Amino acid sequence: MRRTVFYISDGTGITAETIGHSVLTQFEGIDFETFRVPFVDSDDKAEVAANRIRACHERTGMRPIVVNTIMDQRLSDIVADGGGLMLDVFAPFIGPLQDELGMPRSSRVGKAHGLTNFAEYEARINATNYALSHDDGIDVRYDDAEVILVGVSRVGKTPTCLYMALHYGVKAANYPLTEEDLEKLELPARLRPYKSRLYALSIDAQRLAQVREARRPGSQYATLAQCRRELDLAEKLFRRDGIPMQSTTNTSIEEIASKILSQLGIEKHMF
Amino acid sequence: MRRTVFYISDGTGITAETIGHSVLTQFEGIDFETFRVPFVDSDDKAEVAANRIRACHERTGMRPIVVNTIMDQRLSDIVADGGGLMLDVFAPFIGPLQDELGMPRSSRVGKAHGLTNFAEYEARINATNYALSHDDGIDVRYDDAEVILVGVSRVGKTPTCLYMALHYGVKAANYPLTEEDLEKLELPARLRPYKSRLYALSIDAQRLAQVREARRPGSQYATLAQCRRELDLAEKLFRRDGIPMQSTTNTSIEEIASKILSQLGIEKHMF
Repeated sequence: MRRTVFYISDGTGITAETIGHSVLTQFEGIDFETFRVPFVDSDDKAEVAANRIRACHERTGMRPIVVNTIMDQRLSDIVADGGGLMLDVFAPFIGPLQDELGMPRSSRVGKAHGLTNFAEYEARINATNYALSHDDGIDVRYDDAEVILVGVSRVGKTPTCLYMALHYGVKAANYPLTEEDLEKLELPARLRPYKSRLYALSIDAQRLAQVREARRPGSQYATLAQCRRELDLAEKLFRRDGIPMQSTTNTSIEEIASKILSQLGIEKHMF
Repeated sequence: MRRTVFYISDGTGITAETIGHSVLTQFEGIDFETFRVPFVDSDDKAEVAANRIRACHERTGMRPIVVNTIMDQRLSDIVADGGGLMLDVFAPFIGPLQDELGMPRSSRVGKAHGLTNFAEYEARINATNYALSHDDGIDVRYDDAEVILVGVSRVGKTPTCLYMALHYGVKAANYPLTEEDLEKLELPARLRPYKSRLYALSIDAQRLAQVREARRPGSQYATLAQCRRELDLAEKLFRRDGIPMQSTTNTSIEEIASKILSQLGIEKHMF
């Protein structure tokens, strides 16, 4: 079975898509064909969206599912005229919140979707630059680091640092354990002063071998035996030093980042 | 006026926070104090969350606002016992979707929050590696690029590329226009074969000067006159070559990325 889904938004459509994805994965065995329709912020654009929904309905004979994050009721009504199954994300909250807070919502358009707050934008850019300059042991001055990820090569440190920087404006460095660190079975001296900010990543040996093999085919570095050995030593080191650890094997980047921040007690927000 | 908000989730809490942020920015003049409570996936954790809500209510005398993305109704009910104003994000959609699709939702826990689909994880990691190796003109072989961002130094190319990689798994390269490109007022030869994949970023000259000044204080590079000159030439070049352009001045990274993908017709999805 195949169904069409439209993610309609007056902003980027990211929220609509995130929510839609979460709900739709609850229904198994259906092949959802999805379309993002962002920046629907005028009557004209709302009508174009409604026409797309109507045309799709006629073509497929099934009414499309519409996940809608437009705040403005008038624009939502125009989209609803397209005849899809409307799933309004924000609308149900506005009434209860107006009652609770004793005020009407402001009708400024665009605010909802994070049209930039400059200080926040800058924090994210600065954190991204920090992550890039403190990636992979390039710059090892960690005074400003809020998190330092440690782990063997290719365990997922870099994407996690970049994600924390871009999303939360968190300054995240990462340090790849060297052969020497593993042989000595101790944290390098330069990391010891920052122990409370260390967080370890590990991964299943088989997965690591796959990832390394894709990167350097046929290398010793990519053999299962080598991966196993490095991971065993690294995990032993982390346990002994009491460094919190997480496996990246079956975990999304969002989830890894969220767990790290939650476990290190960093209460940063995304926007 | 100050109100407390809890973002409660059986996953990372990112969806709850995104939605909560969007809705709450509609109410001006209130100081919202927000707390993420992620990974509420058992009765015990739901009770801990309910107790936190109850304690906050008693302490502040105001009932907390709870943005809840837990799918499981039983766990949501436990949280609701805490007495907050419950704003359930997913619950209202489940019924209509069950009716529409003619099947009950699957109750597998964790699926909703993108517990990793391996192929997608890999696409995001590969795209991130691609962005890093094709950042700032390091590697200029663009055959595999889906997008190539062009613009003067510090206009926002790198964070945008990384965002598109991490979120959409899109392979995005970026090329900083050189003094020579600007003087000749033409696209460098190496970019010309990929014209349909080029996208230009620009920025307000004053903002650019601020950003550059933070990076290299007192430099010629950071003067307003220099920034103005580079931006004028770059924009002239983009217009003449018909390269779509966007200003990053008052725009969030999400919005920039979303507009680029939408204008270049790249229909990638986030998970």
